[in-house]
Amino acid sequence: MTIRKMGVLGGGAWGTALAATSARAGLDTLIWAFEPEVVDAINNTHENKMFLSGVPLDPALKATGDFAALADRDAVLMVCPAQHLRPLSEKLQPHLRPGVPVIICAKGIEVKTGMFLSDVLAETMPGRPVAVLSGPTFAAELARGLPSALTLATKDEAIGKALVAAMGLPIFRPYLSDDVIGAQIGGAVKNVMAIATGIVAGLKMGENARAALLTRGLAEMARFGTHFGAETETLMGLSGLGDLVLTCVSQSSRNMSLGYEIGEGRTMADIMAERRTVAEGAHTVEILHVIAKREGIDMPITEAVYKILKEGAPVAEVTKALLARPFTRE
Amino acid sequence: MTIRKMGVLGGGAWGTALAATSARAGLDTLIWAFEPEVVDAINNTHENKMFLSGVPLDPALKATGDFAALADRDAVLMVCPAQHLRPLSEKLQPHLRPGVPVIICAKGIEVKTGMFLSDVLAETMPGRPVAVLSGPTFAAELARGLPSALTLATKDEAIGKALVAAMGLPIFRPYLSDDVIGAQIGGAVKNVMAIATGIVAGLKMGENARAALLTRGLAEMARFGTHFGAETETLMGLSGLGDLVLTCVSQSSRNMSLGYEIGEGRTMADIMAERRTVAEGAHTVEILHVIAKREGIDMPITEAVYKILKEGAPVAEVTKALLARPFTRE
Repeated sequence: MTIRKMGVLGGGAWGTALAATSARAGLDTLIWAFEPEVVDAINNTHENKMFLSGVPLDPALKATGDFAALADRDAVLMVCPAQHLRPLSEKLQPHLRPGVPVIICAKGIEVKTGMFLSDVLAETMPGRPVAVLSGPTFAAELARGLPSALTLATKDEAIGKALVAAMGLPIFRPYLSDDVIGAQIGGAVKNVMAIATGIVAGLKMGENARAALLTRGLAEMARFGTHFGAETETLMGLSGLGDLVLTCVSQSSRNMSLGYEIGEGRTMADIMAERRTVAEGAHTVEILHVIAKREGIDMPITEAVYKILKEGAPVAEVTKALLARPFTRE
Repeated sequence: MTIRKMGVLGGGAWGTALAATSARAGLDTLIWAFEPEVVDAINNTHENKMFLSGVPLDPALKATGDFAALADRDAVLMVCPAQHLRPLSEKLQPHLRPGVPVIICAKGIEVKTGMFLSDVLAETMPGRPVAVLSGPTFAAELARGLPSALTLATKDEAIGKALVAAMGLPIFRPYLSDDVIGAQIGGAVKNVMAIATGIVAGLKMGENARAALLTRGLAEMARFGTHFGAETETLMGLSGLGDLVLTCVSQSSRNMSLGYEIGEGRTMADIMAERRTVAEGAHTVEILHVIAKREGIDMPITEAVYKILKEGAPVAEVTKALLARPFTRE
């Protein structure tokens, strides 16, 4: 198969950066965006001022608010927030030709069901080929032409190769994998780990503690992933370790900064009064807590963040207890 | 066995921080230091001004310049530079009782032989029990009482447990492992990865590229380790991933800053003219290059750093080629 016409569902920063990359790779590219002002801005000013301001877009890149306009696409990148994937994919499904693949670029777990996003699509788009694109990527860097490498996971090797051939560029390198579940684990767990890392930083516990926590966080992510059949190579790769490191180390992560403020002694109520939206990890931790309990997966960092954020447990005490777990084998 | 008297071979920053921790854990602790002024300062001013200034030391902590003074020790932490381990261990060997364990706290590979440090000790201290203590640790943080977690690897479980019981503290948590080779891999490879990370940062390639490189660096470290029988769990643990992350992310790493200057376009000759000593990774890369060639281990990041540092290859070109390797499976 050959992919010439790319659809992008979602006009946020990452959707716009991926659309710009797709256009840069020479594909006929159409973004569906929820906000009429985003559609208008992309079509008329060739800039997404709302979500990716300062990045000039190819005038050939078009936007629409109409699902039906995606009917002629050869593939569609799904770049909406994780919790919106179910309703949006339901609406998109009847418009796409059978066999047209969809690529999950959202990160997270469906909170109300605890389902992976590929399982959500198996319900809303039954029989449609699915891929997952995930890795350590800030949208603004990709949009500015700085190099990024990602994992592209699909069970359908022909589709995987066609996507790489269509979208791959020296600055945008998707590495093929067949581990569809594994490629979703990093994106699902990393934000909770970033909150934990932020707490340790806010408590001024030092870089040794942060590195130890990140190591433990990867082990916890790996236990969670392995339980659901993910491969170790994927968890240690770009979509797993890579994304975890980027999220836990970058100063600009919203989850890190939420944790940092908590570590400094501020309450969730205080912090929320100043923020328009809560960081994604604050939602994810609830569903991870439920899944870990139900499945019997040992996730002490997730539990600590849950206790602090959701049960108001004392930060210093919980964090100390986490770092002072018994001397056991690694 | 019970360890009451701890010896520390080496009065640098890390040796002093470990000695202070040993004293804090209630052990009778004696440091052997090469520099008479360090011995004098520890004994008389209770501060190691030369290598760990500003940290008050327990007056019970004593120093010596005489190997024979370590004769009554129950265990000895070997905290000298990696390249000095052979001659110093040869000198120490006749003074210790048979069966007294030595703990390798140095990081690196013996450059002139390509040997792991545990193999060096098997030659210089035949039959003596050996352990490896390694993890993500800045000496100054440990000395200030900030929490650290490390890997403690030994084939002799009784000795491992005795060491943990003797030295473990809430702020100093050694996790037992039996993977003596694995625990040495991170410390041996991380500095080369830190130079590579610095180069990418100096070239202003962005955080996406840095996270991708770090992920590839861990995979390269794992290939190297697995080839020599290291266990995956160790490589993904505190002494492997943990130390790699700390070294590649910290601004204060000498190896990172060497890479950064190279990335910014300075030559090795220029940089060396301003530095008293070269960063450890600049030595390590030579021996890793030799070992990788000899053993047929795929180490593209190491090769790139080798070409840039040792063959004067153009930085931007080599780095671009490294990041633009063919689209393959992870």
